[in-house]
Amino acid sequence: MAVRGAEATWNGTLKEGNGVMKLGSGLFEGPFTFASRFEEGKGTNPEELIGAAQAGCFSMFLASLLTNNGFPPESIHTTATVHLAAGPTISKIELVTRASVPNISAEEFANHAADAKAKCPVSKALAAVGEITLDAALV
Amino acid sequence: MAVRGAEATWNGTLKEGNGVMKLGSGLFEGPFTFASRFEEGKGTNPEELIGAAQAGCFSMFLASLLTNNGFPPESIHTTATVHLAAGPTISKIELVTRASVPNISAEEFANHAADAKAKCPVSKALAAVGEITLDAALV
Repeated sequence: MAVRGAEATWNGTLKEGNGVMKLGSGLFEGPFTFASRFEEGKGTNPEELIGAAQAGCFSMFLASLLTNNGFPPESIHTTATVHLAAGPTISKIELVTRASVPNISAEEFANHAADAKAKCPVSKALAAVGEITLDAALV
Repeated sequence: MAVRGAEATWNGTLKEGNGVMKLGSGLFEGPFTFASRFEEGKGTNPEELIGAAQAGCFSMFLASLLTNNGFPPESIHTTATVHLAAGPTISKIELVTRASVPNISAEEFANHAADAKAKCPVSKALAAVGEITLDAALV
């Protein structure tokens, strides 16, 4: 259906070294270090890429479910908060979504949001993450 | 240990709409559409973000394992190819890594690379992906 590429380079040791992650589309190339990943140093980290991927996939999938059920959405905004715990292990991802969808009931919206969380491709790929929470509401 | 954020917005229906994914660090905000995800349209997509995250996490984790075992690496370069199949489902991720590591044997390097594939945080989070392959070699 679609094949996507990406790459990364790490130079040197864990603590003194540095790396770069790059998207196959060429739209982004971002630096990362021990400090940008485990502390509060400048740069990106794999966890915020995972969060963006899940927020994007979930929002797009929910738009598809709503459209297919007769409720084309105006907009869906989702934040993802990714927790990296000891291990290191991605222990939890929290999704918060706020959507503008004409004429739908809160209950029907909640059902589709739960469905999107369970079935979007990135959620399915991340099923091994211990806990993925969803707070979904209409605005 | 670390908490990372990201967000996404989708505007409109699946096929006519469009979205944006944004990293919490503020380093990247990228547009995506049905065409950039499922066809060959311009823009980004969640799958290339997943690929970059895994390539980055794997490379950094391998640098750590090599350093801890007395073989500080010069550089580790990894590509990730992410397959989105019918479902839609992320059906396969292929990792190819090439590393410059002084004084290590091919066998010991291969063992650490396999270990990094099994144990890096992003690999563990993506354990539900049907198939993750690794081609690892010294250069």
